[in-house]
This record gives sequence, structure tokens and C-alpha cells, in this order.
Amino acid sequence: MSFNTFGRMFRFTTWGESHGLAIGVTVDGCPPAIPLSEGDIQEWLDRRRPGQNRYMSQRREPDRVEILSGVFEGHTTGTPIQLMIRNVDQRPRDYSEIKDKFRPGHADYTYWHKYGLRDYRGGGRASARETASRVAAGGVARAMLRKLAPDIKVVGYLVRIGEHAVNRDNFDLDIVPGNLFWSPDAEIVEVWQDYLAAIRKSGNSVGATIEVRASGVPPGLGAPLYGKLDGDLAAAMMSINAVKAVEIGAGVEAARLRGSDNADEIAAIGTSSVAFSTNNAGGILGGISSGQDVIVRFAVKPASSILIPKKSVTTAGEATTVVTRGRHDPCVGIRAVPVGEAMMTCVLADHFLMHRGQVG
Amino acid sequence: MSFNTFGRMFRFTTWGESHGLAIGVTVDGCPPAIPLSEGDIQEWLDRRRPGQNRYMSQRREPDRVEILSGVFEGHTTGTPIQLMIRNVDQRPRDYSEIKDKFRPGHADYTYWHKYGLRDYRGGGRASARETASRVAAGGVARAMLRKLAPDIKVVGYLVRIGEHAVNRDNFDLDIVPGNLFWSPDAEIVEVWQDYLAAIRKSGNSVGATIEVRASGVPPGLGAPLYGKLDGDLAAAMMSINAVKAVEIGAGVEAARLRGSDNADEIAAIGTSSVAFSTNNAGGILGGISSGQDVIVRFAVKPASSILIPKKSVTTAGEATTVVTRGRHDPCVGIRAVPVGEAMMTCVLADHFLMHRGQVG
Amino acid sequence: MSFNTFGRMFRFTTWGESHGLAIGVTVDGCPPAIPLSEGDIQEWLDRRRPGQNRYMSQRREPDRVEILSGVFEGHTTGTPIQLMIRNVDQRPRDYSEIKDKFRPGHADYTYWHKYGLRDYRGGGRASARETASRVAAGGVARAMLRKLAPDIKVVGYLVRIGEHAVNRDNFDLDIVPGNLFWSPDAEIVEVWQDYLAAIRKSGNSVGATIEVRASGVPPGLGAPLYGKLDGDLAAAMMSINAVKAVEIGAGVEAARLRGSDNADEIAAIGTSSVAFSTNNAGGILGGISSGQDVIVRFAVKPASSILIPKKSVTTAGEATTVVTRGRHDPCVGIRAVPVGEAMMTCVLADHFLMHRGQVG
Amino acid sequence: MSFNTFGRMFRFTTWGESHGLAIGVTVDGCPPAIPLSEGDIQEWLDRRRPGQNRYMSQRREPDRVEILSGVFEGHTTGTPIQLMIRNVDQRPRDYSEIKDKFRPGHADYTYWHKYGLRDYRGGGRASARETASRVAAGGVARAMLRKLAPDIKVVGYLVRIGEHAVNRDNFDLDIVPGNLFWSPDAEIVEVWQDYLAAIRKSGNSVGATIEVRASGVPPGLGAPLYGKLDGDLAAAMMSINAVKAVEIGAGVEAARLRGSDNADEIAAIGTSSVAFSTNNAGGILGGISSGQDVIVRFAVKPASSILIPKKSVTTAGEATTVVTRGRHDPCVGIRAVPVGEAMMTCVLADHFLMHRGQVG
Repeated sequence: MSFNTFGRMFRFTTWGESHGLAIGVTVDGCPPAIPLSEGDIQEWLDRRRPGQNRYMSQRREPDRVEILSGVFEGHTTGTPIQLMIRNVDQRPRDYSEIKDKFRPGHADYTYWHKYGLRDYRGGGRASARETASRVAAGGVARAMLRKLAPDIKVVGYLVRIGEHAVNRDNFDLDIVPGNLFWSPDAEIVEVWQDYLAAIRKSGNSVGATIEVRASGVPPGLGAPLYGKLDGDLAAAMMSINAVKAVEIGAGVEAARLRGSDNADEIAAIGTSSVAFSTNNAGGILGGISSGQDVIVRFAVKPASSILIPKKSVTTAGEATTVVTRGRHDPCVGIRAVPVGEAMMTCVLADHFLMHRGQVG
Repeated sequence: MSFNTFGRMFRFTTWGESHGLAIGVTVDGCPPAIPLSEGDIQEWLDRRRPGQNRYMSQRREPDRVEILSGVFEGHTTGTPIQLMIRNVDQRPRDYSEIKDKFRPGHADYTYWHKYGLRDYRGGGRASARETASRVAAGGVARAMLRKLAPDIKVVGYLVRIGEHAVNRDNFDLDIVPGNLFWSPDAEIVEVWQDYLAAIRKSGNSVGATIEVRASGVPPGLGAPLYGKLDGDLAAAMMSINAVKAVEIGAGVEAARLRGSDNADEIAAIGTSSVAFSTNNAGGILGGISSGQDVIVRFAVKPASSILIPKKSVTTAGEATTVVTRGRHDPCVGIRAVPVGEAMMTCVLADHFLMHRGQVG
Repeated sequence: MSFNTFGRMFRFTTWGESHGLAIGVTVDGCPPAIPLSEGDIQEWLDRRRPGQNRYMSQRREPDRVEILSGVFEGHTTGTPIQLMIRNVDQRPRDYSEIKDKFRPGHADYTYWHKYGLRDYRGGGRASARETASRVAAGGVARAMLRKLAPDIKVVGYLVRIGEHAVNRDNFDLDIVPGNLFWSPDAEIVEVWQDYLAAIRKSGNSVGATIEVRASGVPPGLGAPLYGKLDGDLAAAMMSINAVKAVEIGAGVEAARLRGSDNADEIAAIGTSSVAFSTNNAGGILGGISSGQDVIVRFAVKPASSILIPKKSVTTAGEATTVVTRGRHDPCVGIRAVPVGEAMMTCVLADHFLMHRGQVG
Repeated sequence: MSFNTFGRMFRFTTWGESHGLAIGVTVDGCPPAIPLSEGDIQEWLDRRRPGQNRYMSQRREPDRVEILSGVFEGHTTGTPIQLMIRNVDQRPRDYSEIKDKFRPGHADYTYWHKYGLRDYRGGGRASARETASRVAAGGVARAMLRKLAPDIKVVGYLVRIGEHAVNRDNFDLDIVPGNLFWSPDAEIVEVWQDYLAAIRKSGNSVGATIEVRASGVPPGLGAPLYGKLDGDLAAAMMSINAVKAVEIGAGVEAARLRGSDNADEIAAIGTSSVAFSTNNAGGILGGISSGQDVIVRFAVKPASSILIPKKSVTTAGEATTVVTRGRHDPCVGIRAVPVGEAMMTCVLADHFLMHRGQVG
């Protein structure tokens, strides 16, 4: 019933606003005796950090994680792990410009109608800052899987920025960590650089598509219907700010396919293994992993905080115009890559434990 | 933690397999004093029923719902409502052909790996028959909203079958109930008819895209982050068999947009109302309804049960070929329309109650 | 959030009223490949059945369970198990006597205030008939433990009826199944017979205390704090109709003890086993099983349906007097024995799966 | 599924160990616009604080609460409220004495068997320090009820310490705040003082019984069966460390009563109100509040950390003897009074919101 908790057995609850003292996450249900240090988590937070390159927001947050509980002598104890990240870059600012205006495309309008108030300082819980908590939780999930299911590897990458999609013929996961965009296509990196420079210059922003792929997932994770692995991945990715679509395997293209093309054929390899001819299923059949790579994609809308004026209304109902100044990303999708990885990792950690519980 | 339960306050648990004695659903959390009869539910089941037209499976199931509990003197009592639908069209059949083969694109392979067994008769819980239970639950949700939030109207329609998408210029919700495909575009009906006739003749199947739209949703339903209205809609739609993608508003296209085009502008209407210029947000901002139409789309893959042979393996790991004979749909997406409507209605009913609980 | 669901991984949802068509329970989360037949469940239902002896209600319900789903070829499939019990002994009756009166000690008054209505025929969900569903769920839990943790044995027995408690010096679990009261003290059986005969004759009723003991529980089941084994047992037993107190081990007497007497001493047996000197803890320390017998007791109030007139009010607020005629138990606590056993068994099944999930 | 979360709509998750950097609690689901300051919470923490009088542990923790999120401009925002309490009194100590021994009556033995490790420094999650988090959560619940249901008053008091119970004839709630034992009986205070002084002097400890009473609870809170108000109270109280029994109303005595004595008679007062003759039900019928005072009692066992040697084993399985030195309470039950109040308040806050959600 909680609106701030994700997962069933491997379960995390995030808290905090971008302009409060700190943000954080409580990870509950992690098995005991998993080696875990702040460094294990910091590594993933560093990937996500704003200000990392000139295509991302220039907010300078060190995003230093502190483990407040649940770890003793370098290992998890099986009890709740509290991870706190202090908010340190909170320059006093003048919010009078936006305090009484609803910013188009933001949650301002809906929070106001739901709660009768809003934290006008920085988006409150709707701020992308909350995703740091997810990445921290994902660090715990990675540490867990490293010990319990070391074959599982999760990697995220950008496959589209605005009009420019990667060329799947150039697909190479090895180059993903070595470029600013976590691109799997070496050729598009320069295209994206020039494109984003122009977007930034014009005070605008642009959307993006992220793909996250998990290899080494054993067959059998997931469950029918309301506990489907793909259902949980859809909920996981749609819970990230600004996400407007989630696809599994062939995704929206599945609607165009014929059955003869869609169903992935199975070939025997010896008597104990199989190979699939294709992966339209995205590694999931009937909600349960098949042993193929689990593939999820999600579309991130362009940031609504732009320098181009947009029409809106005030809290008093009068017409106005909104321009959002300050530190913002021309493409928030870039920063969503480690967030998507973290969510995939948490979903797999959760289903690993649930499967072990029910089936042994 | 349940894998067969959906929702938080308005909550349903489905049970039953296509080849058992009955299927059904327990609806829990429905408010008391809601007028409810079997007819209120039957109406929606009748829309979904297979065998309804020649583009759908010819299985003849009357799908007669029985209310076993939770209703007294024509009104809900606030206690669990048990809805049972007997399986009556179970002709004894010979399953020896498929008993030991994994059907490509089916859950056979993954159920086997997860549970060590499978119900080879008809897909077990992975059968589309389970969706009748969802439609029944949706009937209760409709009855509830009719009393508590009568402005909310939910309507689903097909927007694509295979290569043929509707023309949005012809969009007319009024014609949806009057054609076999729940199409909002009168001109495409004949195109689809001819197209599907050819698909059926070739023993093949094809995918489809369904859009579900809710009007009259008050602003404020939903919650930030892990209780987002769009997150719950994504989980709801992805939980339906064969769904491979879920989109909200602009959906996958959001990745191509610029911020200046994406953010829906807000205009004042008098001092107490507003109008949005566009609806890229799909009626949801920050996980909370804005008062615009809530719009979700989902892509359904083509049925994997086709007459065209596909390579596969046996449970013993030997190469084989699978052809699926029997009653099947050339386009399972058609039948998914009332299912998508039911899931949207249940999600709205759930968030209506949760919002009332937290905010009053 | 469901009000009709119990458990986390091994989880059941009950439905149905005493005067509807049927009652039942959906068991979700049971592992696959557990041998299960209707006979396995019927065995436990038969123990609980009213009309079994002259100290229990004379309502003649065969309470025949039907498995509607989740079992294939004699084994569980890992999907929801639906168990239905038809209500067959529903003689048409005249309820005009009680329709507009609140029966003292019943849920009439509170249901009316909560829901604005009540099912005046037989107590609706507040009827003891709901406990048949629990016993059926307990039958599934027993089948599961028989396969996965065969050392666990659960046995319930009466330790008090009204003023007459068993003598612990006579304690002998072997005699429990052989007497009408599931008494562990042979000497008290005749005392209770005479006592209850007099209670019945006077049109009155009396309370009772039931103890349930699980032996063979491995150390490690349970969890700290809000997932404590004793916390879940308390919730389980308090959820049974008419229960007013739950005790673990020393129970209410713990308040009178000194630390030097209370803490159970531990002695080594060889190097791999231990023996506890006493069992004040009731087999649970810090919410987790210690390997000692898990012992829970609960107090059942006397039935409020008696022939002795009690003052009350009508739904219109006028003073009245209520006498409840019909088939009722002089001591409902007798029938609570198999219900308590079932709840203990379900709690252990649930914690067994959760422990396996988290710790492996 | 979380083992560290309590509640459904008003929901809290505690984290932290007695010897870590901090402990805390995330309160989720609180309505927006509730006035809330650190002072509102501190007030209740101060009541619970150890070192407050010489009958409680001399550990000097200021227990200063910090609100890290969820409050903006003095009001709750409807998003998660993070409350942190730093652990400041952590003198470096020598644990070699107990590091390899299981302390009888503690969770040492069971944690070791469950998790394969234990935090030997101070009990980890099994430490009574965790209850400070509950009291903090209770402060939020009180603030919420003060605004939304101001008639509800919750008060806890001691009714027994070891052999000495209060005399109900002296019962006076007004004196509860004015004495060191939160006693409702002025005469017993001196008896308890002398008794505890002797217990302390002998290096021993003693159990206690706490009663918590809520007045002004409207009829209708709660739900049938697995969401019973008494079931949730039982789970709430049993989740507190050292609690071995929970009673509602007549409690364990209900087993001795006859129906003619037990059922509380109802008298009409005018046409719109009623009065009950007695309150054996403890204000709850069928799991739902009746409008009478809600009354729960729980028994706390004596602390196991005593100066009197107890036999035990080492982690290597060898016989040993344990004496626990250091700061400990002769009667931990005293400190449990504000904890019980907090848990009752949280349960009522939760059911208030759930009732409003389902019934409006």
C-alpha cells in the first residue's frame, strides 16, 4: 500500500526531497552475509551524478552515500540497510518567480490539486534527485546478486536521443562504459554530441530511449499474471520520473508482427541446453524468464524545465508565462541509464528471492 | 506478495485454469451499498466472450458469472465478492501431440523450468481465459465508480492491427461500440476485415495495439513514484497475456520530442478551470491525474498458436516441430479491448479509494 | 491492504457468508509439486464440523470441499488453489425477530455502523462458518509441510472450559485425538461433559482456552520486529472469531516472573545440539524460532447467542430485549481447536517459505 | 512482505541498531497539511527516554529527533517523513566477554541460527532501542489524529509489576502522568518503588503488564477477520520486544466467563446514542470499534540481562555461564508504556484512513 516502496522480498523505500537536508533509501529483505561497503554503492552513484559532463545538469552534488544501519563488520546482517545521501548544494535562491505558477509539464499542478500544497523549491518528491536513492538501492542489489547469482550481468545504454537512434548493426556492448552517452554504437556518439550542443544552446531539451539488458538470468524467475517479471519491470521503469513508455523485447513493434515471425524458435543444443533463434520475447514468456537476455526499453520525455516560454496559469487561476532558469539537463535521459540499470537489478534480486522462497 | 492479486484498496485475486472446473475472482475492498447484480457484470463479460464473431476463437463458452458472496439484497456489503465462471466447453481431447513439446512463444517452456511441471491442456494460468476474471472484476469497479465518481467514463478501442493503424483524423468514439473491432475509425473496419480474413486463411496470426481512455477523472488521483497512476496502469496492462509494451500519452514518441513541443500548455478558463493545449502527458503528471483524459496504449503480440510449423524441442531436449491446431484467434488483440478497459477501471477505482483514504 | 487475506508468501484469502451459496478460500503461493487431494483437506474439515457431537452446534453441514483450481494430476502447480465449500443446510427461516435488533456481544452493531447495513441472516462474515475456510487452507499448509519440513507436527488441545482447567500433571498429547474435547488431560473429560451439559441446559454458554503446540520447528523461522513469528501468531489467532487474548509461552504470567526464573537456560548436548531447561519463551526469541516447541494459547469468549434475555436496542434506537434461538454451541471454543491448528500451520508454512527466500 | 514495516495506509518502516550511527523511521501515507514539528515528536520521545529515573536504564541518550523529509513550512506534504535519531552514547566497550556466548532469553541464539551471524554489541535489531523509532512514528500519528479525529485520546499505564497489580477500585487516569510509573492507582506507587529497589539491588529484573486505552474512537474503525482492529492491535503489541501476551477487553478471563455475563448489554440514550453496561469486549465487536473505549493489555517479560548467572552455551557449543553487566532496567515494562501508546495510536491512525478510503 505504500507509495514510496518498491519490491516484495528485496524491497526498498525511498524518502527525501531535493531541497531538504538529505535523501535516502531503506533496503529491507536483503539476505545476510553479503559483503557490502559504501564503496560498492558509491561506484554506481558516481555514474549517475549530475555535473559529470557538460551534457548533464551542472548541479554539484558529491552524492556521498552513508550506510547508517544493516551492515556489521563489512557484511549485511539481514536487517534494514539505511543509506543516506546529504543534500549539500542548496544555494539559497529566490523562488518568487515560480512560487505561484504551475510549470507546464511538471507535477506542480497535480501535486497542488492532490495535496493542496507543493514544495515549490525543486519539485519535492517529483525531482529527479529521488533517483539517486534508487541507484543506491541498486548497489545493494548488485552486491547481493554478485554473491548469489554471479552470472547475472545488467547493462543499460542509450538507443535514441531525439531524432537520432543508434544503428543496431554497430551494436557493441563493450564500448558502452567508454563514452559519455553509454552508447552501444560508436558512430553515433559524435552525432549526439553536436545535436545536444545545439539543443542546449537553444534553451531546449530532448527525449531519449534507454535499453537495459540482463544476461545470465536463469530460466524460472517471475510468476504468472500479477507477479510477472515483465509486469514488475514495467512498473519499475514507469516509476522513474519522465518515463512515458516501457517495452519488453519486440515492444510496440509486436503489434505489427505476424505469429510466424514473432514466436522465437527453439533449437536443441545437446540434450540439456537450448538456443532461441530470435528474442522477440525479450527473455520473458508468460511472465517468467526463459534464460535468454531480459530486455526492457523505456522512453523518457524531454525535460520540461526549458528557457523557451510556455503558457500557463498561476495558483490563483490567472494566465501567465513560464520560463525555467537554473541548472538543468538538455537530455535527462542520459542520467536515466544508471537508474534503469538499478531498477532492473532490484527487480531481478527481488524475483530471485521470491523464486527461491516458493520453489527452493 | 501474492502473484495473483492486483490492486491495493480495490483489490482482486483471480484463480482457475482454462481446463479446470471453473475460474473466478475475489474482489476485496469494494465499498458497501453499491448496487450490484450479476447482470452488471455479465454485460462486460459478454463483450469479451470468445466465439462472438468470426475473427475471434470459436470456443463456445457462455461465460455465465455467478456471485457467490459479498452481495446482499442487491447491494455490496463491503466484504469479499466472489465471482465464479464455470468452464463448460471442455471437450475431451487428445493432448498427446503437444504434451511433451514446448510450443514456441508460449509459457510452456518457462512454466516447466520454474515449476517442474505444466498443465499441458490449455496453458493453465497463462491461458487468455484468465482475462474473463479481470473483466468480471472490472464490472464491479464500474458499478462502484458509477455510484461514487459517475463522471468517469472508460472506453477502449483498437488503433492498430498488424500493418494497419487507424487514421486519427477519422477519430470518433461514438462509433466504437457499433463495429466488430471496437474501431474509432469507420474507414478502417473493412480494411481490417479483409486483412484478418487473409491472416486466418493462411493459418497465421497478427498483433494489435489497444488504446484505453478515461474521461472525467478528477485531478489528484495517483501518487508520487512507486504508487504512480501511470506506474499502476503500466503494471495493469503488462499483466495481461501477450502484452509487450505500454505507453502513456505520447508514449514511445516522447523520446523524439523536444521540451518546447512536449510540455502541454495550460490556459485559464475563468478563474476556476483550466484547459490544456495538448495531451502528451496522457492526463498524468508526476504520477497524478491532471484532469485531462487519462490515455494508455498497449501492444499485443500475435498469438503463438498458429498452423505454420515452428521449430522447437521436446521436454527430453530433442528437436521437433510444433503446429497448433484447434480453436484460436487470428488476432487476440481484439479480445483484449474489454480486458484493457477492465484493468483501467480497476486502477481508477483503486486510486479513487486510496486518494479518499489519504486526503479525504 | 486486503482485509480478507492472511499471510505473505503462503497466503490465503477467504470469502463467503454463512447464508450465501458457498464459502471458500484461495490459497496463493503454495510451492508446486506438493501432493494434494480433496481428501487431504477433508480430513481436517471433518474434525471441525459442527454437529459432530452433542456439545457442538447441531447444524448439519457436510462441509464437502471441492478443489476448483491449482491442482493437476494430484499435485499442486504453484498457482492459486481455490477451495469451495457449498452451504447446503440453509433452511428458510424467519428472521423478523432479530432483523431490527442488535444482538449484544455480536458484530451486528459495529457492522451496521461501519457499512450502513448488515446481513442479519447469520452474522455474515462474522459467522464462525468462515473458520471452515481457514481449516481448508490449513490442510494445504499441512500437505506442504509434510513434504518440505516433515518434522513439524502441530497439535491443538483445550486447556480450559470456563472454570475448569486441565491439570498439567496429567498432560499427555497422545490422548488428544481420542476424546470429544481434544483434551490432553484424561481426568477432566468427564468434568467437562457434566459441566457443559448443565451449561447447555441453562441456555447459557461458556468460554475456553486453546493451546496449540508445534514441535520439530527448526531454529531460524521468523524475523525481527514486524515480521516476528510470535507477532504473526498473535495476528493469526486474534483473527479468529471470539478470541480475546493470545499468549506465547509463559504468556500473561511472564509479567509476574523475575528474570532469574524466566530466561530459559541452555545446556550443550554434544557439540552440535542444545537443550533448554524450560520453555517460558514458547519456542521464540526475538521473533525467531529457537528449535523448542512453539507454544501459543488463545482465549475464546463464550458465544453471545444464548437463551437468556439480554438488554439491547433496535436499529431505530429503541430499547428491546434479545434472546437468540436456534442451533448454537454451548462452548464455541471446542470447535476453535482445529481452527487454531490450521492457523499455526499456515503461519509456519509462510515463515518456512520466507526464510528460504531470504536466507536460502 | 517487509519485516520492518508496520501498517497499511499509515505505515512506518523502522531501521537502525543500538550500536550503529543512528536509528530512525520512515512514516509513509500520512495525509498532507498536518501541522508537524520536531517538538511534536520530541515530546513523546522524552517520555520514553532511558535514564529518566532510577528505575530505568542509566544509558544517557538525548534521543533528539531530526525531521529529514516530508515536512515543508511546518506541515506534512503527504510524502514520506524521515525521522532520524543519532546514537550518541556509544562508549567503546569490551565485548569479548559475551561475543561468543548466547545470552539466555535473548535473541542471540536465534539470530545466529537464522542469519549465521549476530551483532553482539547490543542486540542489534532486537534491542529495545528500536522502540524509540516507534514512539517517533506515534508522534506523527498523534499529530494526524489531533487534526482529523480530535476526540480520540490514547493513554497507557502500568497495571502490574511482578507480583503487585493495581487495585481497580483506585483507578484514576488523571494521576497517570504525575508519577514515575504511569500508574493509575496512587496507592501502589510506593509499593512498586520499594519492590523495584529490592529487585535492582539483587541484580534481578521483573515483568510487568501495561494497559492502553483509547477513548473517543468512533464506531466503525476496523474490518472483519484479517483486518480486525483487535488483530492489528495484537500484532502491534506483540511486535514490541519482550511482549508475551496481548489481551483485548476481558482478555484471558473471557475463557472463564459465561455468555450471560460476558455480552455487554446495550441501553438506548435518547434515539441517537447508546450506552453499554460493561466493556468485556474492549470496545471491539467483530473486529470493528463499537464506540466504547478500546482497551488492550500486554504482558512484558522480565529483562534477561541480569547479574545472576545463567547456564548457557558458546557459539562453539560448549557449556558456559552468562552474567550480563552494564546499564539495564530492572523493569523494562515501565519504558514500554509510551511504546504501547504509540503503537495504539498508529493502529488507530491507520484504520481511520482505511475506513475513510473504503467507506468515505
